[in-house]
Amino acid sequence: MKTYKIALIKGDGIGPEIIDEATKVLDAVASCFDFDFKYEEVLMGGCAYDETGDPLPQETITAALNSDAVLFGAIGGEKWDNLPREKRPESGLLRFRKELGVYANLRPAVVYDELVNASSLKPEVVSGVDLMVVRELIGGIYFGEPKGRDENKGWNTMVYTKDEIVRIAHNAFNIAMERSKRVCSIDKANVLDVSQLWRETVEEVAKEYPDVELTHMYVDNAAMQLIRDPKQFDVMLTGNIFGDILSDEASMLSGSIGLLPSASVGAKIGVYEPIHGSAPDIAGQGIANPIATISSASMMLRYALGENEAADRIDAAVKRALKEGYRTQDLAQYDAKEVCSTSEMGSIIANYT
Amino acid sequence: MKTYKIALIKGDGIGPEIIDEATKVLDAVASCFDFDFKYEEVLMGGCAYDETGDPLPQETITAALNSDAVLFGAIGGEKWDNLPREKRPESGLLRFRKELGVYANLRPAVVYDELVNASSLKPEVVSGVDLMVVRELIGGIYFGEPKGRDENKGWNTMVYTKDEIVRIAHNAFNIAMERSKRVCSIDKANVLDVSQLWRETVEEVAKEYPDVELTHMYVDNAAMQLIRDPKQFDVMLTGNIFGDILSDEASMLSGSIGLLPSASVGAKIGVYEPIHGSAPDIAGQGIANPIATISSASMMLRYALGENEAADRIDAAVKRALKEGYRTQDLAQYDAKEVCSTSEMGSIIANYT
Ligand SMILES: CC(C)[C@H](C(=O)O)[C@@H](O)C(=O)O
Ligand SMILES: CC(C)[C@H](C(=O)O)[C@@H](O)C(=O)O
Repeated sequence: MKTYKIALIKGDGIGPEIIDEATKVLDAVASCFDFDFKYEEVLMGGCAYDETGDPLPQETITAALNSDAVLFGAIGGEKWDNLPREKRPESGLLRFRKELGVYANLRPAVVYDELVNASSLKPEVVSGVDLMVVRELIGGIYFGEPKGRDENKGWNTMVYTKDEIVRIAHNAFNIAMERSKRVCSIDKANVLDVSQLWRETVEEVAKEYPDVELTHMYVDNAAMQLIRDPKQFDVMLTGNIFGDILSDEASMLSGSIGLLPSASVGAKIGVYEPIHGSAPDIAGQGIANPIATISSASMMLRYALGENEAADRIDAAVKRALKEGYRTQDLAQYDAKEVCSTSEMGSIIANYT
Repeated sequence: MKTYKIALIKGDGIGPEIIDEATKVLDAVASCFDFDFKYEEVLMGGCAYDETGDPLPQETITAALNSDAVLFGAIGGEKWDNLPREKRPESGLLRFRKELGVYANLRPAVVYDELVNASSLKPEVVSGVDLMVVRELIGGIYFGEPKGRDENKGWNTMVYTKDEIVRIAHNAFNIAMERSKRVCSIDKANVLDVSQLWRETVEEVAKEYPDVELTHMYVDNAAMQLIRDPKQFDVMLTGNIFGDILSDEASMLSGSIGLLPSASVGAKIGVYEPIHGSAPDIAGQGIANPIATISSASMMLRYALGENEAADRIDAAVKRALKEGYRTQDLAQYDAKEVCSTSEMGSIIANYT
C-alpha cells in the first residue's frame, strides 16, 4: 500500500472549510484504491503571521519540499491588509511559489453543462467552453527588479529572460498536445519590448511542435475575445500579470468562481489550489462551495501522483452531484434540487467517488 | 459665425470610411447652428509611413496643435507589422498622444436599449450599463524607462510619479461629479509597488471630493466583476495598461466594438476616436459601423468645443437610427429592420440631427 505525503495549507477565511472537504473526498477515493494519504498541516498567510509573525514560516517550505504535493486553500483578508508589504499574506504566497519554483500555473476554465445558465454570459456563448490558461507564475512584473517606491514615485519591472519564456512555452505546447493542439500566446508586442522577446521566443519553441497551431493575440483583444467568443480558445499561454487578469476573467465563463481548480507545476513539488480567494465575508458559515478545491485535489491526483483513475472518479462524482441538482449557496438559483452546505456537498461527492 | 478648425486623421483600414461619415454628420448638425468646420487632413500610421517614411510626420503634430480638436479614425494593419518598432503605426500613435500631452483617455461603455440583445452577456446583466473608464494614457509601462531588449532578455518599467497619478485622479473625480459620484480605482496593490503609490495617492485626492465615493479593486477582480455585474461601476480609474485591457473588455458589454467612442484629453488639444481598430479585413467594403466615430465626434463637440446642444442632437440621432432598426452588418442579427452600408448609416444619422 502506497502512502502519499500531502502538505496541507488551509490558510485563512474559508480555506479550512474547503480543504476539509477536499481531504474527505481524497480519503474516500483512496479507500477504493491501493493508496492512502498522510497529511501534514502547515501554516501560511494571515494565520501564519498571527501565530509566528511570518506569513511563510520556514517550516512550511520544508514540509512542502518533503511532500509529494501541496494542497492549498486560500489566504488573506482585510485584517492583514495594513501590515507592511513583506508581512502580508500575499507576500507569503508569492515567496512560496518562488521557493518551490512552480513556474507554470494551469487554470482550466470549463463550463459544466448542468450550470450553463449560471454564467452571466449567454448559454450559447459559454456552453462547451473548455480552455486552459497557462500562466507564467514566478517571473514577469511580479518579481522583476528594479522595483520599489519613494514618496513621489513607484516602479516595477516587467522582465522575462529567454529561458523563462522557453520553459513555460514548452509547458503550454505539451498541454496542447493532449488537448485540441492549439496555443494562443497573449502579449502586448505592439507596445512592450518584453513582449517582442516573448513572441519571438514562443515562435521558436513552436517549431518543435509542428502539430500544434500557434496564434498570437494582444492582451486587450484577448480580454475582449474571451467574452465575445470563448470557444475559439484551447490553450492560452501568457505571462504572470496578463495571466492573472485573463484567468480571473475566464473563470466567470463558468458561472461561479467556486468551481475552478488550478495547478502550479514545473518543479519537483506542485501546488494545487482553487482559483478563488479566502472570502472572509462568508467564512465559518458553511456556505462556501468546496468544488474548486475538490477539483484541485483531482488535479493533484492526476498531475502529481499519476493516479488518473482516482482523479477521473472525483471528476465524475462532481459532475454527478451537479447533475443531480445539488448546489451550494452560490449556485442556488441554477436548477437546484437541493441546496446544501459546504460539508454536505463534500460528503455527497465523497459518496459518489 | 464661428469656424472650428478640426485636424482630421483618417489613418488606415476603415479609418477613411468612418471619418467621412463623422464629418458628414458634423456638417449636418453645424448647419442647424451658428458654426461650421474647417478640416485639415493630415497623415498618421501606416499611410503616413508609406508616404513619408514616418508614421507620425511633424506636419501632423503641428496641424493638431494648431487645431481646436483632433478627430481620428484608426491606424495599423498587418502590412506594417514587420517594420522596425519605431516605424510601426502604433509607435506613431503613442508618440502622438505623448506630444499632445493627452493624459486622460475617457472610454464610456454604454449599452443601447435597442441593442441589449447584441451582447454576448445576458440582457439582464448588461441592460442599463453606463460606465466610464478613465485610463491614464501617457505614462505607466507604455513609456517607462528603462526599457529594451537584447537576445536573452526583455524589460519594461511600470512607473508612475505622484504628479501623474494626482492629475488623472482629479480627472476621474471631476467626471464622477457629473455622473453617479462613484469612483472605483483599479490597481494591483497587493503585488506592485507602483500600485501602492497609486492607491495612496488616489486616496489623498479623494479627500478633495467628499461627495464622491471611492472604492479600490484589484485588476484581476475587476476583469471578473466587469462581466459578473457591470452595473456596479460608474467611473473606473486605472493606469495605462490596465485601462487598455479593461476598456476593451468593457466594450464587449455593448455588443459591438463598432459602437463606442473615446476622448483623449487633459491638454490644450484633445483627440477623439473610436475605440476599435482599423479592421483591414473589412476596409473598403462599405460595411464598417460608423457609429463609434460619429459618437466620438459628438464627444468632441461636447468636451472640446462646448457645443453641448449639437452633441445632444447627434446622440439622439444615433439612438433614433438604432431604434428604427437601422443596422450595419456587424449588428444585422439584432432586430434589424434594414441593414445599411457605412455611408447609408452616416446619411441617416446626419438626416436625423
Ligand atoms: C493573491 C495574489 C497575489 C494572487 C496573484 O496575483 O497571483 C492571486 O490573484 C492569484 O491569481 O493567485
Ligand atoms: C494600438 C495600441 C498601441 C493602443 C494601445 O494599446 O493604447 C490601442 O490598443 C488602444 O487602446 O488605443
